[in-house]
Amino acid sequence: MSLTDRTKPSDVSLNTDLYELTMAQGFWESGLVNGEACFNAFFRENPFDGGYAVACGMGQIADLVENFVFEDDDIEYLAGIQAPGGGAMFKPGFLEYLRNHHLDLTIHVVPEGDVVFPREPMVRVMGPVIDCQLIETALLNLVNFQTLVATKTSRVVKAAEGHPVSDFGLRRAQGPDGGLAVARASYIAGASSTSNVLAGKIYGIPVFGTHAHSWVMAFPSELDAFRAFAKSSPKNCVLLLDTYDVHQGIKNAITVAKEMEKDGERLAAIRIDSGDLAKLSKETRAAFDAAGLGYVKISVSNDLDEYTIQSLFSQGAPIDSFGVGTKLATCDPQPSLGGVYKLSAVRASSSDPWSPVIKLSEMAYKRTVPGVQHIRRFYDTSGCPVGDMLVDDSVSAGPSNTMLDILDTYASYDLEGEPQELLQCVVEHGHRVGEQESIMVARERCREAIMHLDPAIIRFLNPQIYPVGLELGLARLRHDLANEERAASGRPTID
Amino acid sequence: MSLTDRTKPSDVSLNTDLYELTMAQGFWESGLVNGEACFNAFFRENPFDGGYAVACGMGQIADLVENFVFEDDDIEYLAGIQAPGGGAMFKPGFLEYLRNHHLDLTIHVVPEGDVVFPREPMVRVMGPVIDCQLIETALLNLVNFQTLVATKTSRVVKAAEGHPVSDFGLRRAQGPDGGLAVARASYIAGASSTSNVLAGKIYGIPVFGTHAHSWVMAFPSELDAFRAFAKSSPKNCVLLLDTYDVHQGIKNAITVAKEMEKDGERLAAIRIDSGDLAKLSKETRAAFDAAGLGYVKISVSNDLDEYTIQSLFSQGAPIDSFGVGTKLATCDPQPSLGGVYKLSAVRASSSDPWSPVIKLSEMAYKRTVPGVQHIRRFYDTSGCPVGDMLVDDSVSAGPSNTMLDILDTYASYDLEGEPQELLQCVVEHGHRVGEQESIMVARERCREAIMHLDPAIIRFLNPQIYPVGLELGLARLRHDLANEERAASGRPTID
Repeated sequence: MSLTDRTKPSDVSLNTDLYELTMAQGFWESGLVNGEACFNAFFRENPFDGGYAVACGMGQIADLVENFVFEDDDIEYLAGIQAPGGGAMFKPGFLEYLRNHHLDLTIHVVPEGDVVFPREPMVRVMGPVIDCQLIETALLNLVNFQTLVATKTSRVVKAAEGHPVSDFGLRRAQGPDGGLAVARASYIAGASSTSNVLAGKIYGIPVFGTHAHSWVMAFPSELDAFRAFAKSSPKNCVLLLDTYDVHQGIKNAITVAKEMEKDGERLAAIRIDSGDLAKLSKETRAAFDAAGLGYVKISVSNDLDEYTIQSLFSQGAPIDSFGVGTKLATCDPQPSLGGVYKLSAVRASSSDPWSPVIKLSEMAYKRTVPGVQHIRRFYDTSGCPVGDMLVDDSVSAGPSNTMLDILDTYASYDLEGEPQELLQCVVEHGHRVGEQESIMVARERCREAIMHLDPAIIRFLNPQIYPVGLELGLARLRHDLANEERAASGRPTID
Repeated sequence: MSLTDRTKPSDVSLNTDLYELTMAQGFWESGLVNGEACFNAFFRENPFDGGYAVACGMGQIADLVENFVFEDDDIEYLAGIQAPGGGAMFKPGFLEYLRNHHLDLTIHVVPEGDVVFPREPMVRVMGPVIDCQLIETALLNLVNFQTLVATKTSRVVKAAEGHPVSDFGLRRAQGPDGGLAVARASYIAGASSTSNVLAGKIYGIPVFGTHAHSWVMAFPSELDAFRAFAKSSPKNCVLLLDTYDVHQGIKNAITVAKEMEKDGERLAAIRIDSGDLAKLSKETRAAFDAAGLGYVKISVSNDLDEYTIQSLFSQGAPIDSFGVGTKLATCDPQPSLGGVYKLSAVRASSSDPWSPVIKLSEMAYKRTVPGVQHIRRFYDTSGCPVGDMLVDDSVSAGPSNTMLDILDTYASYDLEGEPQELLQCVVEHGHRVGEQESIMVARERCREAIMHLDPAIIRFLNPQIYPVGLELGLARLRHDLANEERAASGRPTID
């Protein structure tokens, strides 16, 4: 999508599904204009058959809320939408209500970079039900994809065993925003750099690049091309070997590396972008070492992901760094987190108490958790998280560590140490709380969180399940509410 | 990604991979500053194991080129980038060259909405080699994803057998741009509407929506919620049945539909978003018909794609319309087209003749096609396309219809009718050619193209391969160039 299609930040308010606006109109004229709601954004299963996810995108929510406004041309567009059955879809009074409407929301989030698990409210939104609906789509659009990319990157970085990983995904992303989201989320989750120059400018992420095959093809010979690149970028020289034939490319690169030495320069690295990377990297390493060029590093790319990188190292490939593009930017093989946004409590106005609500489903695991929830994370004595508990203070059974598994199977965990509150307030009544956090802080938080997570939860194959349960009072509430709704539908209740 | 992160359209010039800029600098100081190039953007395999792709995104290329400019703060950012080996990555003279640099490119495209096949230049870019590199990433970022979404949508629309399909994918897209790209490309490929309000405003696409589960949960009972929605949106009333129990939802919706009739209104439709959609849609249809509400339509959603829709109809599900979200916006199960941008010809300046170039690979199918190519599409007497031929006029063997398969297996086709030239010029020396085309025109082009395509090519399982070959002279050129490069690498040549 061309950046030039959008010229004003206020378009953020129309970056939404139509039904948010029709529902907002409905609430406005149904006597619920002062009604308040509590919504949770969460996912139901860890992506990539993994054991965890990395929360990401939350650092941009305050911007989203503070910049949310319907300007005159937005109102004008909405006024022109016709209902399928005839007439204007939106009433003039409602559109006047929207004009210069600001969101009076209070939002808590799992901080960016921390680990988060299925069912947990990674974002909790409270405030007027209208405002909660108006922000839904944009908020999901923000956190769903970035959480997915951060999780994918965390896995790729794990597989790379400390070797630098650079985001090369821009050309395969969904437009400029997609590319920026990939660069931002992957950097928070441990990537070392990005090829995306705009992300470098906007977020201060280190930028990295080599040259393309076209560079080699544009010169009369590969040797000419390598020499020209070394001359132009002597302090940033990475030569791509596989335009015609990798073995010839190795010879030409060694020639140029020797010439650079005479000029007091050093060839930084070579890159291989096709073929059998395990075999070719070993042959390249051997050739450069034999030529006394042990300092020249080997970088590879070409449809890499955590599994190919793991495989390369298991074959002893002497690779120093990785460029990861397509599978990072598209989160292949799972391009969607499947994050949802569900109502968990309502009240008639801000001065009333909250009433918990529940959504049932044919599938028991899709039944929602009611109430105004927060997350208690328990740690062992060495500071490693051992389990999370969802708590609604208004129904808490007391200061107990007993938790019921979210799937209604009973379980209790012997939890040591003091639990910590995971959710942090980032927006209060529509205004940012505190300073904008640097993505460097989120990146360090992610490094710490992954370092402390049990390796059994991080592993790719059959990871251990991290325990997330409901506090006893909340589990009872969920059980009772489900039975109430079942009874209302004439269905049998459950014990 | 927050829209508010970017405030000026000029950021389009930095929406690129770093190596485009380092290569541009290299060309600038390597005596190739006047060098010209011809690049082709193409994909190597049809997405989704299908038999075709729908070209999309091309309608935004002229905007991209015309708005491409490095402004002062872009130059300032670039000036501050340090090379890994020390010192500034970019030389002051080169940055001055970039300041206010405009792209002198001439670009031909397969028109949006038309069908396109592997190896064909869906975008052909000619002009200064520097400009060709500067636009590469942004151009791929534009056409790769939209072509993928348009192809996916075309398949979903095919499966829906004339029933409306609405894009519901915004919340699972990669930020606002991703959502806009999905809405635009899916509409061109035959979707009837989108839930994305911003896409409605910017592109004039019809917008569509119902209500969410949260609407039902926010009221004391489902019946209250349905009544309130019917009152608020009588001309646009679609009720969602599966918040608690679909069978109870059917009863409540029938009650409200009868009440609406008394007010002279009609319930437009119901929506089911979970469970066994085949079974539930039949039960719903039967219940509404029995209640004399045969006019109420049935809409379904929930992780739909072409295969689930095909399965629903094969089970006789009486479904009237589909909301397709996640799998459209992420193009699951293939989230990347894998489109590339390869150099095919060079010349020292605009007054010199073109020299074709080739890129080899360990994999024969990855060997590029050289030359300044255009595409001749042949039709049978009923106007259906039967084969495409890639032609470089400078090496053409004459007015022959003989073509060689791109995989170097010999084949010839009995082609009837006059061939048509597929590539159209949309940018000449940096300026848009003609008027901006409406997406409605592209949508009609797509409808026509799919209508005329052999059903054997459209089918999902083992589609027929559409013939794309090289004109005899071009096939010889490719063969000879490959041997030249092989010989230069000391490898045996092939016959």
